[in-house]
Amino acid sequence: MAQHTELLVATNNAGKVRELSQLLSGALLRLRLLSEFEGVAVAEETGTTFAENAVLKALHYSSHAGLLTLSDDSGLVVDALGGAPGVYSARYAGAGATYAERMRKLLAEVDSTGDADRRARFVCVIAVADPSDNTVVTFDGVCEGRLAHAPRGAGGFGYDPLFIPEGYDKTFGELPEQVKHSLSHRARALAGAVRHLRERFAGQAPA
Amino acid sequence: MAQHTELLVATNNAGKVRELSQLLSGALLRLRLLSEFEGVAVAEETGTTFAENAVLKALHYSSHAGLLTLSDDSGLVVDALGGAPGVYSARYAGAGATYAERMRKLLAEVDSTGDADRRARFVCVIAVADPSDNTVVTFDGVCEGRLAHAPRGAGGFGYDPLFIPEGYDKTFGELPEQVKHSLSHRARALAGAVRHLRERFAGQAPA
Repeated sequence: MAQHTELLVATNNAGKVRELSQLLSGALLRLRLLSEFEGVAVAEETGTTFAENAVLKALHYSSHAGLLTLSDDSGLVVDALGGAPGVYSARYAGAGATYAERMRKLLAEVDSTGDADRRARFVCVIAVADPSDNTVVTFDGVCEGRLAHAPRGAGGFGYDPLFIPEGYDKTFGELPEQVKHSLSHRARALAGAVRHLRERFAGQAPA
Repeated sequence: MAQHTELLVATNNAGKVRELSQLLSGALLRLRLLSEFEGVAVAEETGTTFAENAVLKALHYSSHAGLLTLSDDSGLVVDALGGAPGVYSARYAGAGATYAERMRKLLAEVDSTGDADRRARFVCVIAVADPSDNTVVTFDGVCEGRLAHAPRGAGGFGYDPLFIPEGYDKTFGELPEQVKHSLSHRARALAGAVRHLRERFAGQAPA
């Protein structure tokens, strides 16, 4: 079962690759990346929930690579917008938009509601697919917070410069990486996934 | 964990409900049907493989019902048509078409290839989603065979009147139900699912 200590971190988002690699660095897994595989079509994110999309991506890439595969689907859920952009976070303002454009649109939409409520949360679902027994397991993580009035900071990626986690007054773009990694939605979801992988492959990982 | 002996058989296809109920009759599970639940939106089958669609359906209905949920995705794979209609079997010739129309179109397309190869197989993937631990497992079953030159028999459902399983000279529409159930793609996939459910919930089912 030595092949199981290899884990394909299946995302084409460079920010996620970096963050997942850092968060998984203590997990004694040999990480593989999509960039090592040629000719793999990009998974369609046609689900209507984070879990459906995470599972679709994990199944798609695990069946192509034949490896234990971890995928992530995540997004920003804004109360004043009835939960938008949610699962459509990465397509908000159009597939070709930059995050600067997406954040501008998001702030304008929140302002236009006239709602003073700035509560928001980052949600992440991690799916782990194992092609050896056709199982998929999901783990979710949530980070509560609120929207800043303008993007601040250059850290993280995506909507990070707009999101102030509960208990802080700086955005994920401003906070040190270690702080973000101690409380982010992705870190919380990944903690569950790592626990699962350790239990499942206990003793099989290189020491 | 008594709630786990309930299994939602999540399909809107009356033929599948009937067949799955018969095949599961010895499995000591209390079967629930989608018709018992109001206002559940129909799952979108946006996957590109049988496994993706089966999993999407199982996740969708299990998250609505909060129950252990079994879904099926299946189709007819025709060699001379490069695998078509495959995952699009139920939408072949348009979503509103009857199976009589679908079978007519299929035969015409096979004829138009000029290919004498009539090999085909029925493929089924069963997904079992358990919302109590966010797991999904899939089981697949294949039944090899060939296409008849015209639909024959009124048994079964879908493309059954067109499919002659290997080792027989009658179609699934003509063969007795017990014969179909002993060798069908759905029976084979379900055998794996039932074994899994028995192992997982051993001793929890009412005797």
